[in-house]
Amino acid sequence: MPLISSTKIIKVNGTNLTDTEDLLAVEEPMEVRLEYGPGNKRLQKNISVTMRTPGNDTELATGFLFTEGIIASGKDVISVTHPKADNENIVLVSLAENATPALNLLERNFYTTSSCGVCGKASIEAVRTACNITESFDKLRIPASIIYDLPGLLRRQQEVFENTGGLHGCALFDTSAKLLYSREDVGRHNALDKLIGTAFNAGLLPLDKHILLLSGRASFELVQKAVTAGIKIVAAVGAPSSLAVEMAEEWGMTLVGFLRDGRFNIYSGAERIVI
Amino acid sequence: MPLISSTKIIKVNGTNLTDTEDLLAVEEPMEVRLEYGPGNKRLQKNISVTMRTPGNDTELATGFLFTEGIIASGKDVISVTHPKADNENIVLVSLAENATPALNLLERNFYTTSSCGVCGKASIEAVRTACNITESFDKLRIPASIIYDLPGLLRRQQEVFENTGGLHGCALFDTSAKLLYSREDVGRHNALDKLIGTAFNAGLLPLDKHILLLSGRASFELVQKAVTAGIKIVAAVGAPSSLAVEMAEEWGMTLVGFLRDGRFNIYSGAERIVI
Repeated sequence: MPLISSTKIIKVNGTNLTDTEDLLAVEEPMEVRLEYGPGNKRLQKNISVTMRTPGNDTELATGFLFTEGIIASGKDVISVTHPKADNENIVLVSLAENATPALNLLERNFYTTSSCGVCGKASIEAVRTACNITESFDKLRIPASIIYDLPGLLRRQQEVFENTGGLHGCALFDTSAKLLYSREDVGRHNALDKLIGTAFNAGLLPLDKHILLLSGRASFELVQKAVTAGIKIVAAVGAPSSLAVEMAEEWGMTLVGFLRDGRFNIYSGAERIVI
Repeated sequence: MPLISSTKIIKVNGTNLTDTEDLLAVEEPMEVRLEYGPGNKRLQKNISVTMRTPGNDTELATGFLFTEGIIASGKDVISVTHPKADNENIVLVSLAENATPALNLLERNFYTTSSCGVCGKASIEAVRTACNITESFDKLRIPASIIYDLPGLLRRQQEVFENTGGLHGCALFDTSAKLLYSREDVGRHNALDKLIGTAFNAGLLPLDKHILLLSGRASFELVQKAVTAGIKIVAAVGAPSSLAVEMAEEWGMTLVGFLRDGRFNIYSGAERIVI
């Protein structure tokens, strides 16, 4: 399926009209189905529908299941396929017979707890429980010069964004600023799920010697997904939200924002950046 | 609850470090609970949790329920309250005894149909059914000069965005470019739900003599919400997605994109804009 589609438009400039073609970022729904259970009792369940840009669909499906805490390990996954040859918008993730998906986390009220109601603190606690990650001390250190280079390195990969202005991008770098993977999508959470799903399939997790770059803002949801993947350094071209900063502080993550024009802000974990 | 919070940061400019304070857009989870059913059998159900910027919470709750098709009319709603005095992150929407919420639409796989699988066409069909809106021909005409004015009029209202760089905004105008309401949020769908919820509570729907301005991109989801509210003209500062354009064409909506620097593109419904 194409990433870009073409449409007839009227360009208006002052009182000047031009009939022309414009390129659009493609947005299509994708359904994730899960197959699980013992051989004589295999079950299928529809897990989610997300509006996404086609491409890296199998990585999107596994990345979503992993960052939402529904699957925990690459060993759980037997295959990821398009079960209908004529429909790329359905992805089937087949789990090993002994894998037990955490289907209770599927509920949209994933973040709530009955005890203390809905608050940022409860959200962070819920994520801690769901992720089952223990904080680790590390000696990861990165020169600021590498941080400055990241947006330019991603931009060279973001061809669709250049063409349509319509996509979010993210990229995973190693500590020498080598770009390992970059992914794009109309939805920023999808772009990150695609990226983490790719690293998950490659057996690279936890990503504790890597840097994540986000082309836009850093929300709670994106930081939560990065935490789940074990990422210690996140740099965003845009602004972080309050809960994103709280989450990063809580987890000892280095969070950089407004990375542009030769400047950036450090919101937490400043010790990892050497200037 | 404040819209903005302050945090200590390190500003890095080249090799120059400054300890300072930075303002963040607040992001907190909000839970929507629905109370419905006859007097002797009132039920409560948790409907959703969304990460949102506090403010206009009751409008966000009603706007979400309306644009997702769960409630159809302002008459259905008796009250919208914070049931716990010490927790602004919970909103209870109480329905009239004879109101029947369409709880089947709650599922995240709202867009799928069993017959034709997942495709853009199916999504559009599902929305048509859910919205129960019949297309109407109209004579609404707007001079291009009004379109050019809209972003500047919204910007004057978007104080939080100016301070934090972290919020999406949207605004509802009448046909003389008078700004009726503007709303902001870390999530663009929340900003639009707040706006439509406000108009819904004021009894203004359908909004078929109004213009909707979006500060960012136009996705399928945003166009779908606008269709549900009967909006005929949508102008976005950013790019539309492919499915947003298809949806606008299907519904005879005027969709304008890349509205900035004295220019814009018309993706559908050009007849309503007079140049």
